[in-house]
Amino acid sequence: MSSLYFDNNATTMIDERVLEVMLPCMKSQMGNPSSNHSFGRDAKKLIDNARNQVAESVGAYPKEVFFTSSGTESNNWFVDGMSNIYPEGQFFYGATEHPCISKPMQNLKLHGVKVEKLRVKTNGVFDMNELNKLSKNEINILSLMLVNNESGVINDIANIREQLSDYNIIFHSDAVQALGKIPLDFHALGLDAMSISSHKINGPQGIAALVIKNGLDIDPLILGGGQEAGLRSGTENLASIVGFGMACELSQEKLKNTEKLKENRNFFEVEIKLMGATIFSEDALRVDNTSFFGFEGIDGATMITALDKFGIGIASGSACSTNNKEASHVLTEMNVDPDLAQSAIRLSLNEKNTRNNILYLLEKIEHEKNRLKNYASLLN
Amino acid sequence: MSSLYFDNNATTMIDERVLEVMLPCMKSQMGNPSSNHSFGRDAKKLIDNARNQVAESVGAYPKEVFFTSSGTESNNWFVDGMSNIYPEGQFFYGATEHPCISKPMQNLKLHGVKVEKLRVKTNGVFDMNELNKLSKNEINILSLMLVNNESGVINDIANIREQLSDYNIIFHSDAVQALGKIPLDFHALGLDAMSISSHKINGPQGIAALVIKNGLDIDPLILGGGQEAGLRSGTENLASIVGFGMACELSQEKLKNTEKLKENRNFFEVEIKLMGATIFSEDALRVDNTSFFGFEGIDGATMITALDKFGIGIASGSACSTNNKEASHVLTEMNVDPDLAQSAIRLSLNEKNTRNNILYLLEKIEHEKNRLKNYASLLN
Repeated sequence: MSSLYFDNNATTMIDERVLEVMLPCMKSQMGNPSSNHSFGRDAKKLIDNARNQVAESVGAYPKEVFFTSSGTESNNWFVDGMSNIYPEGQFFYGATEHPCISKPMQNLKLHGVKVEKLRVKTNGVFDMNELNKLSKNEINILSLMLVNNESGVINDIANIREQLSDYNIIFHSDAVQALGKIPLDFHALGLDAMSISSHKINGPQGIAALVIKNGLDIDPLILGGGQEAGLRSGTENLASIVGFGMACELSQEKLKNTEKLKENRNFFEVEIKLMGATIFSEDALRVDNTSFFGFEGIDGATMITALDKFGIGIASGSACSTNNKEASHVLTEMNVDPDLAQSAIRLSLNEKNTRNNILYLLEKIEHEKNRLKNYASLLN
Repeated sequence: MSSLYFDNNATTMIDERVLEVMLPCMKSQMGNPSSNHSFGRDAKKLIDNARNQVAESVGAYPKEVFFTSSGTESNNWFVDGMSNIYPEGQFFYGATEHPCISKPMQNLKLHGVKVEKLRVKTNGVFDMNELNKLSKNEINILSLMLVNNESGVINDIANIREQLSDYNIIFHSDAVQALGKIPLDFHALGLDAMSISSHKINGPQGIAALVIKNGLDIDPLILGGGQEAGLRSGTENLASIVGFGMACELSQEKLKNTEKLKENRNFFEVEIKLMGATIFSEDALRVDNTSFFGFEGIDGATMITALDKFGIGIASGSACSTNNKEASHVLTEMNVDPDLAQSAIRLSLNEKNTRNNILYLLEKIEHEKNRLKNYASLLN
């Protein structure tokens, strides 16, 4: 069954090696890591180790890794935490950011903060001309995603940072869809903050991190007992942190084996184009596991419901969000024709999807496409 | 080993029946509950079931239960979410609240909101006279904990609510330490919001809820994909939610078996008083598993470090917070002499602690007390 799951940008299955390190934490009496007894100290050591694993996988120092409950929380925290420190700053975000960046940004705007959305090109890649909107006389707080969750488009963050070398900027990137798909080096990218999440890389859900450059001033989003060096309160989620650490370590291994993913994805795209599909962002640099496509005149949501009957799990538009009938905002920002945007389907592969699984998927897509086309012509 | 763990108000061990329901979610391909395929729908069904279990255990409707990542987040959310809706409201909180209530409240005050701390009596129970500070002409937003994490004191929330029947109030209670220790009935208590947490009741860490009365207007703390009816974004933490649901169901069973806890706690207190200990909040109504005590002249932190060498896990002051040398704010607010407050130790039992474990603990406490007393007299 799970080999017919093609929705890995939404969530992934926990790797058995991750579960293996989590289970001892879940089966024995562990203390609160803040407690000053051996139960607590044992927990703290495990967290320290996981923090090292996470840091190493993204080229950061361990003390720059702050655990949160989700990529969504990490992104919200960055926006909120910066607006408290720089209420007079200019805030910018990319047009195709996930709602957990765009909504907090829009919220700041409602509260009188200067916030501007920066455009992408029609292929979904960030439009470098938009950097002219930044000001050399003010502090610019900028959030641009590294990899888009729907299209798989990779933004050249290091180059963008370089273009802004004369500016006073605080640069954040939502790297939730990048971790485990492309190599990540926080410092080499020139970032001040970066969000990553566990459940996108075969780790447990409910755990993530905001990586914060040493010395960057940020206010906490969640106040209380003063965990995570006072920046993120709440009892540490021990088993999940341990699992996230291992998932990060394993993500480095994944990076060495992306060839098969790419071959499968490319094979899929060749075949799906022969059926008449449009591939969104086809000419852009994209991660290896993702294909965002559609058949003009065939509603994407209808298609995925049809495929579901064959045990196939695949997404229409962003599967991170609750169901709604609006077209993908990513495609809207790319100026894709609304009818075509309505047809969008996202394939996001994992390492377990075989060529045979993809052949089965293609067969069912073709079958359902013809059925839905015939049905539509009967109605007309 | 785990039977010498007496720090269950800090965190508890996962019940094996909880782990049993979590494991299938962690071992198989589950979808994102927001996804429109069978993988996602299966996940959604499990969440619906868990929401029912949580709701039933606290006397709320399922649609009143909103999952968060921690009691800390739930408490922060209430304060933050209310201040956005009622920036002109009067905010009140109890003097012995957990920092995850008092700090966000103090933060509001810094931003110009009317915020006032309400006193407790010297036994730690809320001082009803403080209700005179509320205004009949304004909206009063009030947060009072049901059970104190350090002293175990139970506040009579239903009675407080009744005293305020003529007032325009929004009443929140931090019930994190109450769930599983005393019966909870959200509606009977007359509450508008209530925080509960999984890892205090033998459920997994990293999952909790804010119960919000149907119809109460509150802003989200975390924005994004619109999960939890738009009020709390972020991919649902499936396995943990399922575990939390089961832990809530089992908490009802716990309530039927508190006699042994109470007998053990009372036995402990009789013995510890014979050794010269002071029991804090002794005359107050308290939960059955908690004893907060100290020996004048013996530093609590030193004592727990000494006991740790015997494999004993027990807390000094609040173990939810990171270590600091300040006396417990709970005792300070109770006007306990600072020297005596410095001696505070918190015993918080679980069902697995036997009479023999307690005898062992008492023996080691007596031994270390005498050793530390002798050592102190040598220094003087």
